[in-house]
Amino acid sequence: MNFTSEQRHDDGVLEREFTLGEIPGTLWMPGSASASAPVPLILMAHNNGLPKAEPRLVARARYTAACGYAVAAIDAPGGGDRPRSAADDKARADIRRAMQAGEPVDEIFESFVGPLVEKAVPEWQTTLDALLALPEIGGPVGYSGWTAVGIRLAAVEPRIAAAGLFAGGYVPRAQREEARQVTIPLLFLLQWDDEGNPRQRALDLFDAFGSKQKTLHANLGGHTGTPWFEMEDGDRFFGRHLK
Amino acid sequence: MNFTSEQRHDDGVLEREFTLGEIPGTLWMPGSASASAPVPLILMAHNNGLPKAEPRLVARARYTAACGYAVAAIDAPGGGDRPRSAADDKARADIRRAMQAGEPVDEIFESFVGPLVEKAVPEWQTTLDALLALPEIGGPVGYSGWTAVGIRLAAVEPRIAAAGLFAGGYVPRAQREEARQVTIPLLFLLQWDDEGNPRQRALDLFDAFGSKQKTLHANLGGHTGTPWFEMEDGDRFFGRHLK
Repeated sequence: MNFTSEQRHDDGVLEREFTLGEIPGTLWMPGSASASAPVPLILMAHNNGLPKAEPRLVARARYTAACGYAVAAIDAPGGGDRPRSAADDKARADIRRAMQAGEPVDEIFESFVGPLVEKAVPEWQTTLDALLALPEIGGPVGYSGWTAVGIRLAAVEPRIAAAGLFAGGYVPRAQREEARQVTIPLLFLLQWDDEGNPRQRALDLFDAFGSKQKTLHANLGGHTGTPWFEMEDGDRFFGRHLK
Repeated sequence: MNFTSEQRHDDGVLEREFTLGEIPGTLWMPGSASASAPVPLILMAHNNGLPKAEPRLVARARYTAACGYAVAAIDAPGGGDRPRSAADDKARADIRRAMQAGEPVDEIFESFVGPLVEKAVPEWQTTLDALLALPEIGGPVGYSGWTAVGIRLAAVEPRIAAAGLFAGGYVPRAQREEARQVTIPLLFLLQWDDEGNPRQRALDLFDAFGSKQKTLHANLGGHTGTPWFEMEDGDRFFGRHLK
């Protein structure tokens, strides 16, 4: 893990870019962090491999770090700062076009996001290994964001103690099946009128999780309309399970 | 409004019984309350006219009062400390028996709870008038609990600024219609496996509310299994809208 740049923000949060082999990542640490008191870690991923530099993810990461967590995000294969393929670009464009036209997107989604999850999860595990080797980071570990990756990680990675998942209307078949194997505490957040996430499918997914402690939060509005107080609620959820 | 008894609890909350004509009520005040700083008010009702002395309602009321609110509960006609009729007792027993047997309860429910809501709402308004005349209580006013009464109150009573509603699987037809007229901020809380509240109906009711700010919280488990942190979430909801 090589740190390539760092920046201290006004709220005390230290933001560092890193590379881990081919994987580019960002690590946010709370201003209060010191080597003597390692902080819990939250892995934060954006749905469907959107870039880690996307402003909504950065805002969420900085808020969460300021609450006392180490927060890490990485770019998924083919996304963000990583080499892009023409095939990936075409698949993303196809999904966008089909959604806008109100056409079925399941098959395009399955053929693009399914393999993306398969490739992304081992990279998150490699990143987790490297992060937990840092003296300033302790356990336990939470996960926040991209639902499909969260399901797979929670199913295969015993170090993940709690997860906050967002949306979940479109999730690859493999992860819809794996949802039953997930048993950690969950906060499942959805937007009631999310134009890109069919509501009933998201509710069915919430129903499918094997977790005994699972909470659904839904708010009126579209995909990007999540109210700010849900960030506080997320902090309180992780506070109950990671602190 | 006649106060008939009072009790100071260890957490500082002052609990006073009162009567207002035929209506018996309880008022809980935070320990910090003084005449110089009136506190906001929350009207707290138990679903389907369960007694105001029921331990779950009392626990919720005392927690909420300790958070800095005046909290009031009254017994609905025919419930709690009020004269009971043989017809009411039979209706309650019929609903219980039909639910346990898995039989349809809509018609029994409609014929019993529909009129109960009609009778209860004007009494809540009378109570509200009397409470707001007390120097230690200011506005704004929130409502918490029994969904059907909350819908009617929010639809007809402009002094209600925000409402937290619970369950909502069985709600009289009149209030299912009135839900569209409700426009105040809502926190709608349901138990995912509530044996007495069909999930899809509760979700349909959440969908029907006219409010632009509405949030759904659902947790795994049966009717009485709401996790304790939802009391904190309720306090935070009212804090955003009443303080």
